[in-house]
Amino acid sequence: MGRVVVDVMPKPEILDPQGKAVAGALPRLGFAQFTSVRQGKRFELEVDGEVTPEVLAAALAAAETVLSNPVIEDVVRVAVAPEVVGSTEPTA
Amino acid sequence: MGRVVVDVMPKPEILDPQGKAVAGALPRLGFAQFTSVRQGKRFELEVDGEVTPEVLAAALAAAETVLSNPVIEDVVRVAVAPEVVGSTEPTA
Repeated sequence: MGRVVVDVMPKPEILDPQGKAVAGALPRLGFAQFTSVRQGKRFELEVDGEVTPEVLAAALAAAETVLSNPVIEDVVRVAVAPEVVGSTEPTA
Repeated sequence: MGRVVVDVMPKPEILDPQGKAVAGALPRLGFAQFTSVRQGKRFELEVDGEVTPEVLAAALAAAETVLSNPVIEDVVRVAVAPEVVGSTEPTA
């Protein structure tokens, strides 16, 4: 079973109220080192079998037409997930 | 200027209605190859200067206490963004 990861972020020129809220909360909670936060979306798409180049191309098309709003969002990454088990482990 | 990326996904055992909605829409829109979709969040945290190991440790702490709800979500990745310009370019 393969997995494709799609990352979508608000365009830089678009106001991001969720990110602004997080950026405002972090210093109050002891994390003063972060100057700016932007919040986007991460999708994990599963396919039966291997992630072929065709699947990756379909994922890119889906990312640009279904998973993101191109007026306000950029697709920043479409990539094969390295391992299914790996995606539940934090890596610092 | 450094940037840390934090990815948060709903735990596997938690129902993900957003992902379910996307998974239902994809086949109707011509993307029948994807069997399952889960939707999570991606945060980009900016810092002045380099991303030091201390900054990364702070980002991990923030990810686990502020950016995610540990009851229903897993922090799946805390990593240095490869390049600031790179994050606006899709990579397939």
